[in-house]
Amino acid sequence: MQQHEIGFLIFPNLTQLDFTGPLQVLSRLPGARTHIAAKSLQPVPTDCGLSLLPTRTLDDCPQFDLLCIPGGFGVVDLINDQATLDFVRRQAAGAKYITSVCVGAFVLGAAGLLRGKRATTHWAYTELLPLVGATHEKARVVRDGDVITAGGVTSGIDFGLVLVSEIAGRQAAETVQLGIEYDPDPPFDAGHPDRAPAPVRASLEERYAKSVQAYRNALVPLAA
Amino acid sequence: MQQHEIGFLIFPNLTQLDFTGPLQVLSRLPGARTHIAAKSLQPVPTDCGLSLLPTRTLDDCPQFDLLCIPGGFGVVDLINDQATLDFVRRQAAGAKYITSVCVGAFVLGAAGLLRGKRATTHWAYTELLPLVGATHEKARVVRDGDVITAGGVTSGIDFGLVLVSEIAGRQAAETVQLGIEYDPDPPFDAGHPDRAPAPVRASLEERYAKSVQAYRNALVPLAA
Repeated sequence: MQQHEIGFLIFPNLTQLDFTGPLQVLSRLPGARTHIAAKSLQPVPTDCGLSLLPTRTLDDCPQFDLLCIPGGFGVVDLINDQATLDFVRRQAAGAKYITSVCVGAFVLGAAGLLRGKRATTHWAYTELLPLVGATHEKARVVRDGDVITAGGVTSGIDFGLVLVSEIAGRQAAETVQLGIEYDPDPPFDAGHPDRAPAPVRASLEERYAKSVQAYRNALVPLAA
Repeated sequence: MQQHEIGFLIFPNLTQLDFTGPLQVLSRLPGARTHIAAKSLQPVPTDCGLSLLPTRTLDDCPQFDLLCIPGGFGVVDLINDQATLDFVRRQAAGAKYITSVCVGAFVLGAAGLLRGKRATTHWAYTELLPLVGATHEKARVVRDGDVITAGGVTSGIDFGLVLVSEIAGRQAAETVQLGIEYDPDPPFDAGHPDRAPAPVRASLEERYAKSVQAYRNALVPLAA
């Protein structure tokens, strides 16, 4: 069976489901070998009080076939982190799929990998995509050549299934989907900014405003 | 703001998304304090090559308001683990919500907490629920009094939102849902055993057969 080296980057203050959703899906891709890379092998704290253990340091990874960058508030600290950006560029140069979930897109962007590409990110941050040379496409999973970006957090599960289907075919993806019983049934229809109640959207926009501004401040010098 | 002590049990060979999905949702419940309990503070290996760090040992937990047991193949080793079952019974006695995702239901069952209850679990294991005195209800999230059980893996996300709504109201749940952009869009309609293609279902039933038999062997003596 063909091996697929699936590599994730993790970092302090990631949104853990951005990573754990696609990890669950992609680890069931036939032939998958998953790698969880971080700056050191020390536990990596997430946004949930949960810490995760990397399996690789940035300097000790095989060439990935698929590189995936999850998001989280911690991404802002990577935008000017040369060691991380060098790792991302190095892996992207040899990877078949260069991917992100949520605001992980801005790590790809800071590494120069979204220039001229259609892409997406968490809904509250899409207006920042032009700062890394990308055009926002309104979809949950956006493919432009070898670059595949997913929207916020849970879109990483749909993204993972799209990738399994692409790499191993529809039946493989359906098998993973049934295995994780992914027959979603959200109790409300509030998961898309166009359909969420206005006060719900407004309260989140207020909550994210500082973070969006911090991303903008970090990205504007790159755009110049 | 009212505090809510949200406690998860983790154990070797859990299915990480059974845990990380509801953790992501419930950690955003206003007033939530999350606790990740295990037998020791050592890293806990999951089914994905990822290890997780507990924050508490079983003997060092506050009384949880909500107890959640995720699933995974490792559950079979807990069915006769008295230290774990004592912990579950002790926490359940004072908790407002006694919950599980996927085959975590059989930990509740082995602790005697599903007797006479309607419940659910991963679709491939529902036939075993009578062995712990429960009646299977065909739904993604099943509530019977203070016992709330969810189906396989990704149902834990829907379950988490149902709980946030129950505890903090609809707007709080919608806010979490929009924050995690939970507007699911699976590429195929294969996530429910009634609708998945027959060969897909058959291949998984074959893959799970040994595990289902191991659960049956462990549970039958409890039923006697």
